[in-house]
Amino acid sequence: MSYFDAASAAPLHPVARQALLASLDEGWADPARLYREGRRARMLLDAAREAAAEAVGCRPDELVFTSSGTRAVHSGIAGALAGRRRVGRHLIVSAVEHSSVLHSAEAFEAEGGTATRVPVARTGAVAVESYADALRPDSALACLQSANHEVGTEQPVAAVAELCREAGVPLLVDAAQSLGWGPVEGPWSLLAASAHKWGGPSGVGVLAVRKGVRFAVQGPVDERESGRAAGFENIPAIVAAAASLRAVRAEAAAEAVRLRELTARIRARVAAVVPDVEVVGDPLRRLPGIVTFSCLYVDGEALLHELDREGFSVSSGSSCTSSTLTPSHVLRAMGVLSEGNVRVSLPTGVAEEDVERFLAVLPGAVAGVREKLGAPVAVTDADVRGDELVVDALGKRCPIPVIELAKVIGEVPVGGTVRVLSDDEAARLDIPAWCEMREQEYVGEQPADRGSAYVVRRLS
Amino acid sequence: MSYFDAASAAPLHPVARQALLASLDEGWADPARLYREGRRARMLLDAAREAAAEAVGCRPDELVFTSSGTRAVHSGIAGALAGRRRVGRHLIVSAVEHSSVLHSAEAFEAEGGTATRVPVARTGAVAVESYADALRPDSALACLQSANHEVGTEQPVAAVAELCREAGVPLLVDAAQSLGWGPVEGPWSLLAASAHKWGGPSGVGVLAVRKGVRFAVQGPVDERESGRAAGFENIPAIVAAAASLRAVRAEAAAEAVRLRELTARIRARVAAVVPDVEVVGDPLRRLPGIVTFSCLYVDGEALLHELDREGFSVSSGSSCTSSTLTPSHVLRAMGVLSEGNVRVSLPTGVAEEDVERFLAVLPGAVAGVREKLGAPVAVTDADVRGDELVVDALGKRCPIPVIELAKVIGEVPVGGTVRVLSDDEAARLDIPAWCEMREQEYVGEQPADRGSAYVVRRLS
Repeated sequence: MSYFDAASAAPLHPVARQALLASLDEGWADPARLYREGRRARMLLDAAREAAAEAVGCRPDELVFTSSGTRAVHSGIAGALAGRRRVGRHLIVSAVEHSSVLHSAEAFEAEGGTATRVPVARTGAVAVESYADALRPDSALACLQSANHEVGTEQPVAAVAELCREAGVPLLVDAAQSLGWGPVEGPWSLLAASAHKWGGPSGVGVLAVRKGVRFAVQGPVDERESGRAAGFENIPAIVAAAASLRAVRAEAAAEAVRLRELTARIRARVAAVVPDVEVVGDPLRRLPGIVTFSCLYVDGEALLHELDREGFSVSSGSSCTSSTLTPSHVLRAMGVLSEGNVRVSLPTGVAEEDVERFLAVLPGAVAGVREKLGAPVAVTDADVRGDELVVDALGKRCPIPVIELAKVIGEVPVGGTVRVLSDDEAARLDIPAWCEMREQEYVGEQPADRGSAYVVRRLS
Repeated sequence: MSYFDAASAAPLHPVARQALLASLDEGWADPARLYREGRRARMLLDAAREAAAEAVGCRPDELVFTSSGTRAVHSGIAGALAGRRRVGRHLIVSAVEHSSVLHSAEAFEAEGGTATRVPVARTGAVAVESYADALRPDSALACLQSANHEVGTEQPVAAVAELCREAGVPLLVDAAQSLGWGPVEGPWSLLAASAHKWGGPSGVGVLAVRKGVRFAVQGPVDERESGRAAGFENIPAIVAAAASLRAVRAEAAAEAVRLRELTARIRARVAAVVPDVEVVGDPLRRLPGIVTFSCLYVDGEALLHELDREGFSVSSGSSCTSSTLTPSHVLRAMGVLSEGNVRVSLPTGVAEEDVERFLAVLPGAVAGVREKLGAPVAVTDADVRGDELVVDALGKRCPIPVIELAKVIGEVPVGGTVRVLSDDEAARLDIPAWCEMREQEYVGEQPADRGSAYVVRRLS
């Protein structure tokens, strides 16, 4: 089995395992107690906090351990917004943040706050100027990820942090994907991360709040972790998280070079050996281990199953693989193709042979899925009226609407249009993306009796 | 070392350790993913949920795993109150709940809700009639612990649950202290518990919400654990929690008999061998492993240090051992002595010899602390005015005010009064408790320039 989904969860690092086992016997007691077992637990907790703070680049008393990265984000955003309530009720996030950030923004809006979602370029990166434009006198907080979890694109965090400092607005950085690779540069105010992304155990998040940042804890009072993370501390896991962070940092520089070479190889070779593929994300400013691409005319779930059968565990931002029927908000914000989407995120220490085997298997897997989906469009579904051809793809899930569009575009004259009727959310993203890839004109979306009509003009 | 503080955190059960190790390699992946590692993680999670639900006595789809017992309580109370917002904004709790429940009640009041705190008898138990009296047409939720964490008294949960069902008000049971011993009886609606109390690992709580209970999750949306516990699931710890719950349940009946005998022995012997001691909590309706007593004229922290030096880890509800300067809200609500308070909570498997050694060491430890504190009251501190003697104990921490009272009571004639000036919060509890133990009359508390004046009339 080759596990290529480290961006979801990394396998436990050997150092984490070792530290966890060692501290199961030493760290189970209540660190608030004065007796021997309590003092021992407190010492382990204090040492872990110092190690984590050093890796984050903050003071130990600025850092608390939460029960997950999601909790760190939820608590960090809620606390910072409440702490600056008097300044205003405006929040800035990028459109490609992790769902924990975006759901926090929605919760804030539900309570009467307003949120600005900063758009991204086709690479997935925000422009520093967009954050400058979004800042307002009533901005209480801005959030920006250090790097994107779906496509690996690094964000200009240091420049945005500088900008926010000048404006007097705290910046919360979701560093979940990057903290194992190095500290976040720039004058950030709050930082959240998650241990199981860097090879630590599940159940540990990190929340750093710089001294001087106004912060008002929300929810019931709890005295643990400076009042910022309710519940009994999970010290064995915290010790393992801190020890493994230090360990992956020691290996980071060399491993980054190695993984960058492997992901560059995937980027180049996928584009070369898989027809009709779009490799997405910034080609240069990106995390070492993540590469993402989308395959036209491919059902993401079927491709994942095919790859799983071949022994590869990858994930996908296609709507076909989720229960929600909407494609990844990241791919949507980037305006790239979502169908047949595959994210490869290599764990540290991955073997080069496994990557080569993946590249050998992928073209056949994609071709196989396309072949299964390649049934000709039924004649009754296409209906030429003058220069317009109507494709009825109602009730059909991605990638069928795009496949049907591609099959009939040659049947209308150049300058003529194809009207695709679809009630699949993914069509809204994938039909324009197909037009861009195929250099056809996307005329626009029109309301229809059921779903929408997507109009495409043949240019060549 | 004899660890006698299982009610704070139990050492890891061997079965928990074994299950944790086994699932570190199998349970680290994202259970929401479709590939092999994800499916394996999902299977482990599903099996753990079934085992835990069986032990709790609910359906698997009624139970979620949280990151701690505190989180289970916070989320359970907030969700149930929000789910029944239209019914009303009234909450009922007992006065001796765990701080996570009481702090939730305070947070609810800060948002405009009202909370009734049901008083307890001197045993620490609530009366069923008191819950009947507290129920109102606008009651959204009632909370009652299955047993008290500080004194071990069992609460009449089944009867209160029946009462609440008749009134159509959901009852949340905090079963943190009792779940390892058996399921909670009666028609409860919500239940919260914490794995590290039964020998499971830190980082796992349990929240059960019966079908049909109106429940509205608070905070940002998160799809994990039916939306009721945000953040990546800590599956190895969850597996260990469920496995150890099953294991301790298998041993519970036999171990309960053994521990009951040991705590009964402590109750009897402490009262016999330590002078001026009050053993608190219900002598019969109590948890098997908890026994609590308070020693007059003893500084709780000094006694804990003395016992720690002798190799015993116990905890205390005395204000002298906490940073907050207020004595335990449980002892206060019971109206019992708080000074020199010691809670012994025996872990399962504790050796009888260790208990015997504790009973052998305790009288000397108490006597030693009393001797150190026994300096005679300075003549200038006591000032007889007619039949009233004034003791100035301002600036002196518990148990000094009570010691000074005890020393001078013989100096006033029967019928005369002693006026103790004190600014220590514990005096408000401990002076009346001393009067009850010594059969003197507690006249009352009067305002003073600094602190309060506590007036005691000599009866004998």
